[in-house]
Amino acid sequence: MTAIPSDPEPFPPFEVERQEHVYRSPWCALRRDQVVLPSGKLQEYHVFEISPAAVVVPECADGRLVLVGQYRYPHGKTQWELPAGRLGAGEDPALGAERELLEETGYRAGSLHALPGFYPTGGISAHYAHAFWAKDCVWQQPTQHEDAEQIFVRLFSRGEIEALLDAGRLADAFTALPLLYWLRRRDREQG
Amino acid sequence: MTAIPSDPEPFPPFEVERQEHVYRSPWCALRRDQVVLPSGKLQEYHVFEISPAAVVVPECADGRLVLVGQYRYPHGKTQWELPAGRLGAGEDPALGAERELLEETGYRAGSLHALPGFYPTGGISAHYAHAFWAKDCVWQQPTQHEDAEQIFVRLFSRGEIEALLDAGRLADAFTALPLLYWLRRRDREQG
Repeated sequence: MTAIPSDPEPFPPFEVERQEHVYRSPWCALRRDQVVLPSGKLQEYHVFEISPAAVVVPECADGRLVLVGQYRYPHGKTQWELPAGRLGAGEDPALGAERELLEETGYRAGSLHALPGFYPTGGISAHYAHAFWAKDCVWQQPTQHEDAEQIFVRLFSRGEIEALLDAGRLADAFTALPLLYWLRRRDREQG
Repeated sequence: MTAIPSDPEPFPPFEVERQEHVYRSPWCALRRDQVVLPSGKLQEYHVFEISPAAVVVPECADGRLVLVGQYRYPHGKTQWELPAGRLGAGEDPALGAERELLEETGYRAGSLHALPGFYPTGGISAHYAHAFWAKDCVWQQPTQHEDAEQIFVRLFSRGEIEALLDAGRLADAFTALPLLYWLRRRDREQG
């Protein structure tokens, strides 16, 4: 087994000359900062602010996964996605994950296990996504969708998920990334 | 081999009552739209606008991968990342990928092959990332970094990459996702 390489030596953070919100709303905000580069030069840096998210890989006792067909207004496509959503202020990521799972799919997790989380767009935002593997999911109740969500639920075998991934048909990063981690973790646990 | 499941039946797109930019800059923009939900209710929907990106998995002839240690101002961390960046207006994604590879690492690709692309944050943005596997990379020239980039280059074995992924230490989605696709593709090509 290969040793885990060290993280890179941390660079000193940029000095911040000014931070200014050019837009604020309860949903998201946009900051335009003035930072001092290592060269001493001043530079404008935009930072998009949005609350952290949680995403779930829901697996049933028979090994099938619960995905949702979901319409996304920004790009206009309807795609298969993992249940996911933003955390409420101060909400525990695991509880938020269970809440989103129940709201979007109607399933409840038997147990919840952390998968690696991620920064979806680290160059422009500190937005972070917590990811979980929900084992032994069982159907609990009809779904309770928010008004803006158009969703329907479908179960997929592991083989179907792999076929979709390898065909590049799970273009939602919040879906493909946790599923690929889940495949590796599952192989390790079985192997 | 499992058949590839169909995409979900597309939902009809939201009707758009109004689109308004609350912020515009050469780097990014923020739109606040008024959409009509299927229920007939009006809802505000924010859309973050930013140009598409390209990301590269650069592999040398000896199988080692070229990553960069990079400081990200929004979350303040220095992490191992794949070379990536935004495309210029009208820039071909493959050419943009080669340009970013050369600028950030000093390496040039022997050949370039598409990997599945992705929407990093499809709930809030149509931002899309094109991903490529660059085979037979060779060092060409010293790196030419933009002023805001603090970067250094390091080669990793496949085993080291897997160890970093499994430890959850590649938290940049633009890095973890193409690497996980690359691992699967590589196994298929060898298997």
